[in-house]
Amino acid sequence: MEPVGPRSTANEPRFANIGTFARLPRLDQVGQAEIAILGAPFDAGTSYRPGARFGPLAIRNGSQLLRPFDPALAIGPFSTVQVADAGDLAINPYSIAEAVESIAAGARAAYGSARRLLVLGGDHTVALPLIRAASERFGQLALVHFDAHLDTWDTYFGAPYTHGTPFRRAFEEGLLAQDASVHAGIRGPLYGQSDLDEDSVMGFEIVTADEIALESAATLAERIRSRTAEHPVYLSIDIDVLDPSAAPGTGTPEAGGPSSAQVLRLLRALASLPIVGADVVEVSPSYDHAEITAIAASHIAYTTIGLMALAASASR
Amino acid sequence: MEPVGPRSTANEPRFANIGTFARLPRLDQVGQAEIAILGAPFDAGTSYRPGARFGPLAIRNGSQLLRPFDPALAIGPFSTVQVADAGDLAINPYSIAEAVESIAAGARAAYGSARRLLVLGGDHTVALPLIRAASERFGQLALVHFDAHLDTWDTYFGAPYTHGTPFRRAFEEGLLAQDASVHAGIRGPLYGQSDLDEDSVMGFEIVTADEIALESAATLAERIRSRTAEHPVYLSIDIDVLDPSAAPGTGTPEAGGPSSAQVLRLLRALASLPIVGADVVEVSPSYDHAEITAIAASHIAYTTIGLMALAASASR
Amino acid sequence: MEPVGPRSTANEPRFANIGTFARLPRLDQVGQAEIAILGAPFDAGTSYRPGARFGPLAIRNGSQLLRPFDPALAIGPFSTVQVADAGDLAINPYSIAEAVESIAAGARAAYGSARRLLVLGGDHTVALPLIRAASERFGQLALVHFDAHLDTWDTYFGAPYTHGTPFRRAFEEGLLAQDASVHAGIRGPLYGQSDLDEDSVMGFEIVTADEIALESAATLAERIRSRTAEHPVYLSIDIDVLDPSAAPGTGTPEAGGPSSAQVLRLLRALASLPIVGADVVEVSPSYDHAEITAIAASHIAYTTIGLMALAASASR
Amino acid sequence: MEPVGPRSTANEPRFANIGTFARLPRLDQVGQAEIAILGAPFDAGTSYRPGARFGPLAIRNGSQLLRPFDPALAIGPFSTVQVADAGDLAINPYSIAEAVESIAAGARAAYGSARRLLVLGGDHTVALPLIRAASERFGQLALVHFDAHLDTWDTYFGAPYTHGTPFRRAFEEGLLAQDASVHAGIRGPLYGQSDLDEDSVMGFEIVTADEIALESAATLAERIRSRTAEHPVYLSIDIDVLDPSAAPGTGTPEAGGPSSAQVLRLLRALASLPIVGADVVEVSPSYDHAEITAIAASHIAYTTIGLMALAASASR
Amino acid sequence: MEPVGPRSTANEPRFANIGTFARLPRLDQVGQAEIAILGAPFDAGTSYRPGARFGPLAIRNGSQLLRPFDPALAIGPFSTVQVADAGDLAINPYSIAEAVESIAAGARAAYGSARRLLVLGGDHTVALPLIRAASERFGQLALVHFDAHLDTWDTYFGAPYTHGTPFRRAFEEGLLAQDASVHAGIRGPLYGQSDLDEDSVMGFEIVTADEIALESAATLAERIRSRTAEHPVYLSIDIDVLDPSAAPGTGTPEAGGPSSAQVLRLLRALASLPIVGADVVEVSPSYDHAEITAIAASHIAYTTIGLMALAASASR
Amino acid sequence: MEPVGPRSTANEPRFANIGTFARLPRLDQVGQAEIAILGAPFDAGTSYRPGARFGPLAIRNGSQLLRPFDPALAIGPFSTVQVADAGDLAINPYSIAEAVESIAAGARAAYGSARRLLVLGGDHTVALPLIRAASERFGQLALVHFDAHLDTWDTYFGAPYTHGTPFRRAFEEGLLAQDASVHAGIRGPLYGQSDLDEDSVMGFEIVTADEIALESAATLAERIRSRTAEHPVYLSIDIDVLDPSAAPGTGTPEAGGPSSAQVLRLLRALASLPIVGADVVEVSPSYDHAEITAIAASHIAYTTIGLMALAASASR
Repeated sequence: MEPVGPRSTANEPRFANIGTFARLPRLDQVGQAEIAILGAPFDAGTSYRPGARFGPLAIRNGSQLLRPFDPALAIGPFSTVQVADAGDLAINPYSIAEAVESIAAGARAAYGSARRLLVLGGDHTVALPLIRAASERFGQLALVHFDAHLDTWDTYFGAPYTHGTPFRRAFEEGLLAQDASVHAGIRGPLYGQSDLDEDSVMGFEIVTADEIALESAATLAERIRSRTAEHPVYLSIDIDVLDPSAAPGTGTPEAGGPSSAQVLRLLRALASLPIVGADVVEVSPSYDHAEITAIAASHIAYTTIGLMALAASASR
Repeated sequence: MEPVGPRSTANEPRFANIGTFARLPRLDQVGQAEIAILGAPFDAGTSYRPGARFGPLAIRNGSQLLRPFDPALAIGPFSTVQVADAGDLAINPYSIAEAVESIAAGARAAYGSARRLLVLGGDHTVALPLIRAASERFGQLALVHFDAHLDTWDTYFGAPYTHGTPFRRAFEEGLLAQDASVHAGIRGPLYGQSDLDEDSVMGFEIVTADEIALESAATLAERIRSRTAEHPVYLSIDIDVLDPSAAPGTGTPEAGGPSSAQVLRLLRALASLPIVGADVVEVSPSYDHAEITAIAASHIAYTTIGLMALAASASR
Repeated sequence: MEPVGPRSTANEPRFANIGTFARLPRLDQVGQAEIAILGAPFDAGTSYRPGARFGPLAIRNGSQLLRPFDPALAIGPFSTVQVADAGDLAINPYSIAEAVESIAAGARAAYGSARRLLVLGGDHTVALPLIRAASERFGQLALVHFDAHLDTWDTYFGAPYTHGTPFRRAFEEGLLAQDASVHAGIRGPLYGQSDLDEDSVMGFEIVTADEIALESAATLAERIRSRTAEHPVYLSIDIDVLDPSAAPGTGTPEAGGPSSAQVLRLLRALASLPIVGADVVEVSPSYDHAEITAIAASHIAYTTIGLMALAASASR
Repeated sequence: MEPVGPRSTANEPRFANIGTFARLPRLDQVGQAEIAILGAPFDAGTSYRPGARFGPLAIRNGSQLLRPFDPALAIGPFSTVQVADAGDLAINPYSIAEAVESIAAGARAAYGSARRLLVLGGDHTVALPLIRAASERFGQLALVHFDAHLDTWDTYFGAPYTHGTPFRRAFEEGLLAQDASVHAGIRGPLYGQSDLDEDSVMGFEIVTADEIALESAATLAERIRSRTAEHPVYLSIDIDVLDPSAAPGTGTPEAGGPSSAQVLRLLRALASLPIVGADVVEVSPSYDHAEITAIAASHIAYTTIGLMALAASASR
Repeated sequence: MEPVGPRSTANEPRFANIGTFARLPRLDQVGQAEIAILGAPFDAGTSYRPGARFGPLAIRNGSQLLRPFDPALAIGPFSTVQVADAGDLAINPYSIAEAVESIAAGARAAYGSARRLLVLGGDHTVALPLIRAASERFGQLALVHFDAHLDTWDTYFGAPYTHGTPFRRAFEEGLLAQDASVHAGIRGPLYGQSDLDEDSVMGFEIVTADEIALESAATLAERIRSRTAEHPVYLSIDIDVLDPSAAPGTGTPEAGGPSSAQVLRLLRALASLPIVGADVVEVSPSYDHAEITAIAASHIAYTTIGLMALAASASR
Repeated sequence: MEPVGPRSTANEPRFANIGTFARLPRLDQVGQAEIAILGAPFDAGTSYRPGARFGPLAIRNGSQLLRPFDPALAIGPFSTVQVADAGDLAINPYSIAEAVESIAAGARAAYGSARRLLVLGGDHTVALPLIRAASERFGQLALVHFDAHLDTWDTYFGAPYTHGTPFRRAFEEGLLAQDASVHAGIRGPLYGQSDLDEDSVMGFEIVTADEIALESAATLAERIRSRTAEHPVYLSIDIDVLDPSAAPGTGTPEAGGPSSAQVLRLLRALASLPIVGADVVEVSPSYDHAEITAIAASHIAYTTIGLMALAASASR
C-alpha cells in the first residue's frame, strides 16, 4: 500500500492549517507507520534556561517548509515508507519520576504502532525512558549522541533523572552495548578530567566539535559506524550541538560549535546506520529568533527520518 | 445532547498538543456546531506591514490558557452550546479576487455546519466575503466594527478589495441595513474631512477611541444597541483597535488607542446583541512580542463566542 | 544608627556594578535590617511558560534606576529604616517538596536578621513556604493578593504545591486569619462558578481588574483595609496582575488587566497596612521586552518597601 | 501660495521611498516653511540606556502611516501651512560642549528658514541649545515639559550639560519666563524632597502622571494655559512621559506612566498655545519593539505640528 | 569627470541623515551613473513569510557602515565609477501582473540613466522583469543565481509570476543564453527528482551549498566562469542563500547554508564577470535581528558594485 | 595556598546569585590574585551603535555556564592560579579624556593586586589606558588584536581617543614593541589603501578573516608567535571579530567574519603566549539575542584566562 504523504500544497498555502510535522498525516489517520513522530513536551529536568516544553510545537511549526524529496539522501522518505505524526505525550510536569515512567510507557505504546520512533523534546531527560523503551524492543543499543555536552554526569541536587544524566543511567541500567557509543560535537568546559575518564569507562568515544569542523564527514562517519558496528542504533540529538549562532533557542548554549551545514553533512554520511529510535531535544523557543533553531531542528529531524527510511528500505 | 467541550487539562499540560482554539474539538469531530471557528490566513490586501497570514496560527496558540467558564459574562460558552474549530480555509495568496470568492464559498459551507461563524484573520479584506455569506443567510446586517480605521475607503491602486475597503463595498452591495452600523475605536489622521462625510453617508456612526476611554461601557453599549436595533449583527474586530502597546503585532498600528480591558468591557456590555457572524483580524505575529497581541485577540475571540452563546441561549 | 543606604551614583554610573536591588548594601554588609530582600529563583511549579527562575536577576537589574526618595509616599525608605539585599536562596530545582521546605527554612533564617521580608520570585509556588515562615513568627495573617488568578485551585497532576495552589494550602494549614484576605486584579476565564464559591469559603474577597480600573484607589484601599483589619498582612503580588502590555514577561498572561499606574496607585493607598512579609513573583525575563516587566516589578517592590518602612515607622 | 504637502500615496505604497517625516517635502525642496522638522541625533548626554542617536531615523520611519488630516484638531496641518523636513544636524558625538554649540547654531540657522521648529532627538541634552535659539528669537519662554523626570538636576560627574539638566541650565541662563513653566507626567523616585523644592524655585509647576490619568484634559490644559499665560511656548516632550508599556524604546523608563491616549488628549487640549519651538526626544530604537515607541512619538510630533499650525493660523 | 562619492563622515556621524545606500548621492543629484541602485519594494509573490517589501529600507539602513575602499577587490568602487541611488520604484502591491510590468518599465527607465543596475528587493518575483529589461538591452544573458532554492518551479495557485518561478519564466521567454546559467548555494528538500531534471533542461548547472563550503572559491568561480562564458551576466542573489543563522530575516529560510564569509569569498572570486544587472532580494526585516541580515545583504550589494566597477574598468 | 575557586553548583543552581564572572570570588574576598577580571563600562567612544556600557554585566551573566576545567587547554585555570572578579571601574560617561585617565588609574591599581588583568569592556576606547598601565609595568608590549577593524585610525571629530583609534595612539606613545604586533580577523571596507599602509608603518601585520577561515590555527599561531617574539603580550579582542551571526550584539558589525569556533581554535593555539593584559570589548547587549554574543565573549574571556594561567604556570 502506498504511504499517505504530506498534505499537498498545490491548493493550500503552507501557512494554512499548520499542525503536524511537515504536513504529514496524524498517526490516528493511518493506523500504523514505519516511522512515528512523537512529541515529549517536558522540561522539568533542565538545569539552566527552561522552555523546551514548547519544543514540539516549535519544531512542528518550523517544519512547514520541508518538501517531500531529499536530494542529499536521494530519497523521498514520505513516499518510501509511511511516516506519521503521533502528537504529544501527556506528561506530568511536576514529578520527574512520574514523567520518566509515562514517557517510557508512551514510547512503548508508540512502538506498537510504528517500527521506528522519532521523538521531539522536551529536554534531554526524555532520552532515558526512550532508550529504555527502544532497548526493551531491540536489545542493547549503540548510542550516537550529538551534543555539546556529555550528559553522563551523575546526580544533581540528588536527582538521578535530569537533562545532564540520561546516558549514565542508560549505561548503569545495561541498555547500551559495550563500547559501541559515540558523542559528537562535544566542546566547552567540564567539571574536571574525571568527567572524560568516567565517560570513557561508560563506553563512549568522543568526536569533538573541532573534529566535526575540520575532518570530512566521511571520515567521521566511518569512525562512528565502526563504533556502533552491528548494533541497533539510538540517535539522540541535542540541538545545542549547534553553535549558539545557529541554535540560540536552547537552554545551555556553548560557543564554538558546528554550523547546521556541518552537522547535517555528518548526519547524511551515516546513511547506512540501523536507527530504531531517535530524539531531537532541547529546542527552547522563547530564546529562539525567527525560528532559526526550530528550522534547524526540523531539518535535522527530516534527515533523521530519511536515514530511518533508508534503513527500512535496506532491511526489507 | 451535551456539547463536546475542550480537551481536559487534568492529565495533559496546556503546552501539549497545542492545536485548536482553546483546545476545542475539531468541527469534523462533532459534525455540527452552534458556533464554528474558522481561520482565513490571507494578507494580500495589506497596505503596510504584512504577516496576518500567520494570524490564525498565532491566535490559536495564544488561546491555550483560556478556561471554559467566563465569569464576566456568567456563562460557560463551551458547555452551553457546541463550539468547534473548523480549521483554516485554503486561500489563493496571489489573487485577491479569487481569494475573496473562495472565502465567501468557505464561509457559506461553514454556515452549513454551524449557525454562527467566528473567523480568525487574515487581514481585513476577508470581512467582505464573510459579510456576503452572512447576509445571504440572514439578510441585511448591522455592522459593529471595532477598529482604529474606518475601512470605508475606496480603491487603492485600482484594487476594489483591500483591507481598507471592505465596508464601502459591503455598503455598495447593499449588504448592510440602513443606518444601523457603528465603528468603535476610531482615531488617528485621515485623508480629509470627506472621509468622515462619506462614511456617514454609508450609514455609520462613530464611537471614537476617546469615547471608549472616557465613557462607561454601558452608555456606549446602549448607543450601539440602539443603532443596530433588531438587525442581525456582524461583529468585525480589527486588533488594531487596541493601542499599539497592547497589540504591537499588527500591520497599521495607531497610537492613542484603548487598552484590552477597555475593549473587553465594551464587548461584554453588548451581551444582548444577536451576533451571527464575526471576525478578529489583522494579527500579524512577526511584529508581536511574547504573544501579547495574540493573547488579547484570543480573549476578544473568547468573549465574542460568549456573546454568541448568550444570543443562542436567548433565541431558543 | 543611620541606615546604610544605596551606593551613591555621584561617582559611579548606574550601569556600573549592577548587583543588589536598587544598589542597596548586601545583608552580610550590615548584619541586621528592618527589611531584607531575598531572591527565590524557582519555577518548577509553573503550568505554562517557565522562566521565573531568572526573575530575581531580572528584577534586580531592572531596579537600578530607582532613586532613594519616594514622593508618592513622602518617604525615603532607605534612610528611614535599614534595607538590605540578602541575595538568593539555593533551591532544589528538581523537587518541589524539597524546594518548599528549603524556602521556608531560608525565610525563617532571614526573619532572624530582618523584621520584614520581601521576596523576589520565582513562581507563585514560593508564596506558601513564605507564608508559613511569616505565620510562624506573626501568627495568622491577612493575605492581600494581587493577581489575575485566584491561585486557590487544588492539585494539578496530583501535585499539592504548584503556582496555582499556594493559597488553598495556606488556608488548609490554618495560616490565614478568617475572612481577612483579598484578591485584587482578578479577571479572565475560570474552570467554573465553583472556583469562585470555593474561594469565598476560604475567606477571600475579590477586587476585580475592572474595579481597579473604574473605582478610586482610596475606595478600594478602604475595602482592603476593612477586610484585613488588625491582622499582620502578607502581601503577595503576581506580576501578571498587570495587563500583558505592561508585563509581557510572565508565564500565564491574561488580557484585560490594569496598567502599572493603576496598580501602583492602589498599592500606595494601602499606606497604613502592617505588612510583615511580601513577594513579587512570576517575572519571566525570557518573555520580557526592554525590561518593562522587570522595571514594573522593581517599582512595585520599591513601593512595597516604602509601605513596610511606613509600617515600621508607625510601629515604633 | 499653496503649501507643498506629503508625497501622495495614490501611486506609491507607504513602504516605498521611506524618508522624510510623514512623506513631507525636504526643506531644500521648498526653501522656506512655517514649520521645519529637524533631527538632532545625539545621545552622549545619556545616563543609562543609550541609543537615542538613532531616534530621528526611528521617528521618521514610524511616521509613514500618518495621513494629512487630523480630525481630533480639525485641521490638515500640511495643507494649512508649509511643513518641511530639514534633515539631521551633524553633531559631534564625542564632545558635549561642542555638540551643544552646534545644535544651537543649527537651530538658529533653521529659524532662518522656518518660523517654528520641531526637533526630533536625540537625548534631552538637546533641549538646552534649542531653548537658547528659540529664546534668542522670541525672548523669554514658557516651558511646557512632558516627562517622567524633572530634568532640573545639577551636574553629574561634573558635567553641566546632560539629559538630566537642561532646564536648570535654561533657568540659570534666564531663558525662561518667571513662574510660567510646567512639567507634566512627573512620577517615580527622586533623590530627595529637595529636588521638588529646587524645582519649584526655578519656576515650575508639576502636573503628575496620576493627575494626567485622573483629571480631565480640559482641566489640566487650563492649568497649563494659565501658567504659560501670554509667553511664547517651548514644548519639550520626553517620550518617557509615556508608560514603558507604550514606550519601551527609551533610556530611563519609569513605570506608572500615562498611556499614549492620555498624553495625546492632553496635548490636543492645548490647542491655543503659541508654540514656537518643540522637541520630541529620548526615543532609543534598539529598545523599541515593532516601532511602538516610534509610532507614539510620531503621533505626538504630528499633534505638535497641528498645534503649531493652529497657532500660525491664529496669529495671521 | 570625478565621480561624486558618498557623503563624507568627517563631519557627520554615520547615524545622521541615514538615507541612500552607503551614503551615496541620489541619482537625481548626478544625472547619469555607471551603476544605479534601485529599490523594488514588493512582496506579493511570497509563498511563506512576507515582509520583503521593507527590504530596500532595511538594506539601505544596514549599509551605513560601508566605507569607500574594498581591499578584498582592491578597488574603491565609488571613486572608480559613478554610483548613485535611484530610490524605490512605486509598485502596485495588489496586482502581481501589473507589478511585473511596472518593474520592467522602471528598470528600462533606469537603464536610460545608468549602464548597470543593482536592484534591492523585494521578493524574488522582481527578478523576471529585471531580466527582461536587461535582456532587451544586452541580449541573452547568463544567469548567476545565489539561492537555497532553484526558483524554476512552475505555477503555484495558477500564478505564473511568484518568487518561486522567475527563472523558469525567463527560460521560457528565451531571455537566457543556452546552458550558460548557474545556481549556487542550492540545498534542502525538493518536490521530487523531477525538479532537478527540469532545471537541468532549462540550462542550469548547480553549485550546491556543500560545494560552497568544501571547495575553494577559485575552483567554483572557474566553474561559473566557464559556464557563463562570454555572455553578459545577470547576478541574482536571494539572501536565503545564506544559512538562517546569518540571514534570519528572510521568508523561506533553509538550514545548512553557507556563512556570509563563504558567499562573499565566492563572489569576490568572480572578479572578471561582465555583470550588467543584479539583484539582492528576499530581505524581510521583521524577521531580522540587530540588522544582521540587512548588513550581510549590504555587504553582498557592495561587493556586487565592486564587481560591476571592475567590469566597467575592464571594458573601457 | 590553594586558590579559591568558583562557588560550587552542587547545592546552588547556576541561575541563583548570578554575579561575578563564572561564579568566581570577588577580589576583595581573596585580596590578591594571579588574574583579576575588571569591568570597564564605558561607551562614549562609540561611532555607531552604542550600548557597550552594559557589556560587563552581559558578559558576567553570560558566563554562568562556564565550568572549571578546560579540556581544550587541558587546564583547570581556577584551580591552577587564583582568579578573582574585581568588579567594575567607576568611569565618567561624559568626558572621554577623564575616562581614559581613570581607566588607566584603575588598571594601575588592579595591577597592584593581580599580576595579570583581563578587562571586560566597554568600547574599544578602553584599550589605550589599559595598554598604558600594562606598559608602565611590563615595558613595551606586543599587541595581539582580534577585530574586524584596524582601530589605527586617527582623530574623528577632532577626538583623539575613540573606539577607532586606540592602537594608533598606543603606537605614537611608544607603548608597543617595534613590528611585534598583529591584527587578526580584519575584513570589510576601508577609507582607502592608505589605511593599510599607515597601519603597516605602525608595526602591524594582518591576519585576515579569510585566513582565519582557511588556514590552520597552528599555522596562524606560528605567524603570531614569531611576530610577538619574546615581548610581553597584550591581547585585545573586539567581539566584532566574530561574524554578526555569532555576535549580533555589537556596535559596528561586519559581515564575512569567522565563527566562534574558528576564533576559539586560534586563541587556543596561542597557548605559550606571555599575556600580561587583555580585554574583551564591544559587547552591546541591547543588540544581542538570547545572550549569544555574551556567551561567545564569556568563552573567549575564559580561554584568555586559561592562556594566562598557562603562562603563569610556565613562568614559575
